[in-house]
Amino acid sequence: MQQLVLVRHGESVWNKENLFTGWTDVELSPQGEEESRNAGRLLKEKGFVFDVAFTSVLRRAIGTLWLILREMDLMWIEECKDWRLNERHYGALQGLNKAQTAEKYGEEQVKLWRRSYHVRPPALGEGDQRYPGRDPRYASLPPHLVPRTECLQDTVERVLPCWQQVIVPALRESRRPLIVAHGNSLRGLIKYLDRVSDSDIINLEIPTGTPLVYELDNDLKPIRHYYASEIAPPA
Amino acid sequence: MQQLVLVRHGESVWNKENLFTGWTDVELSPQGEEESRNAGRLLKEKGFVFDVAFTSVLRRAIGTLWLILREMDLMWIEECKDWRLNERHYGALQGLNKAQTAEKYGEEQVKLWRRSYHVRPPALGEGDQRYPGRDPRYASLPPHLVPRTECLQDTVERVLPCWQQVIVPALRESRRPLIVAHGNSLRGLIKYLDRVSDSDIINLEIPTGTPLVYELDNDLKPIRHYYASEIAPPA
Repeated sequence: MQQLVLVRHGESVWNKENLFTGWTDVELSPQGEEESRNAGRLLKEKGFVFDVAFTSVLRRAIGTLWLILREMDLMWIEECKDWRLNERHYGALQGLNKAQTAEKYGEEQVKLWRRSYHVRPPALGEGDQRYPGRDPRYASLPPHLVPRTECLQDTVERVLPCWQQVIVPALRESRRPLIVAHGNSLRGLIKYLDRVSDSDIINLEIPTGTPLVYELDNDLKPIRHYYASEIAPPA
Repeated sequence: MQQLVLVRHGESVWNKENLFTGWTDVELSPQGEEESRNAGRLLKEKGFVFDVAFTSVLRRAIGTLWLILREMDLMWIEECKDWRLNERHYGALQGLNKAQTAEKYGEEQVKLWRRSYHVRPPALGEGDQRYPGRDPRYASLPPHLVPRTECLQDTVERVLPCWQQVIVPALRESRRPLIVAHGNSLRGLIKYLDRVSDSDIINLEIPTGTPLVYELDNDLKPIRHYYASEIAPPA
């Protein structure tokens, strides 16, 4: 049996302000930092140990990971930061207030962008300051991989190669991975693991800073999952 | 021309208490954290950018690195944590007060342990709580590589394979490395780069939290070095 622990990053300063964030690299809020430290303390108390950590290249996820590792006395483990674990790219909506966006495009349209599996928000132009191709952390990617907008399906489709190429090999070596990522990249992993339908996955809400444990069999199929908070600490 | 930036970790809680630290995994002091943030702010202000960071597996170095990367908006770069960049292992002196050690063994003996290139402090027994082989971060090392004590020469001799095997390849790929390590592992690198003699290297004092820049030619031989604080920020 293998364990996989998933954590959604703590609250960011933009979650609080109700802005579309996506790939915008915003900080954790003080509450988000506290959630992260609490997640680390909980994991330590429950006896979890990790050999390797996977996270995105966005600071709200990396910051959450670092606070967890610090609380767990595991700062020394290997960290793998992969852009494919980033949040869903929200296209030209990034940085806009959710209420204002509803006023401009209509509630129904915004609901569709937020709640459908296949519908993409308006794309960023390549000249846009927000276009990820301008950012050094994505500079080495082939241009066709750099998103200008994403629907949830697009996010799922780039998360899965990360799962196959870097996380599965770690599990096959019996390493114990911690994954700290984002609401939609985690939806991608869970959709794959639990075979969630396209229409159901968008309704799956993953709470921030709340370690979720998957037990996997030898074929890396899920046996069960539960929150780390639900289990008894080791004797 | 290639640049290499070296930073000695900020002050730890044991530096303040005058204890032999070595591989003991102690925290940064609040002053050490502030030194680290200042180093990050300085490097950013002077226009430095890094693609990859090398550090030890000890939290005072990793913590310094994380605070620097956070200030520089570079949390996303690759981190390589290598035990070979650890501080010199201080053997059975680890955890002892420097004044008490002098009382017990005599000033001359302690001076020899601290100031000679070839003399090792008393070794730890394998049953000692402090023996690194008991620590999961060193569990995968072949036992003959796990130190029970080190003279400075031993430290230098394990730092150099790290230089050759992981740092040189990064430089050959034109990556821009930041190295955050310890007084004696940095002495090892500098001894090699600047061909410092065995007797002179121990007198080289590297200030904490103070980025030191080496410019290297195409053969990775040093052209010059200076503190980052000495240069003008980019126009």
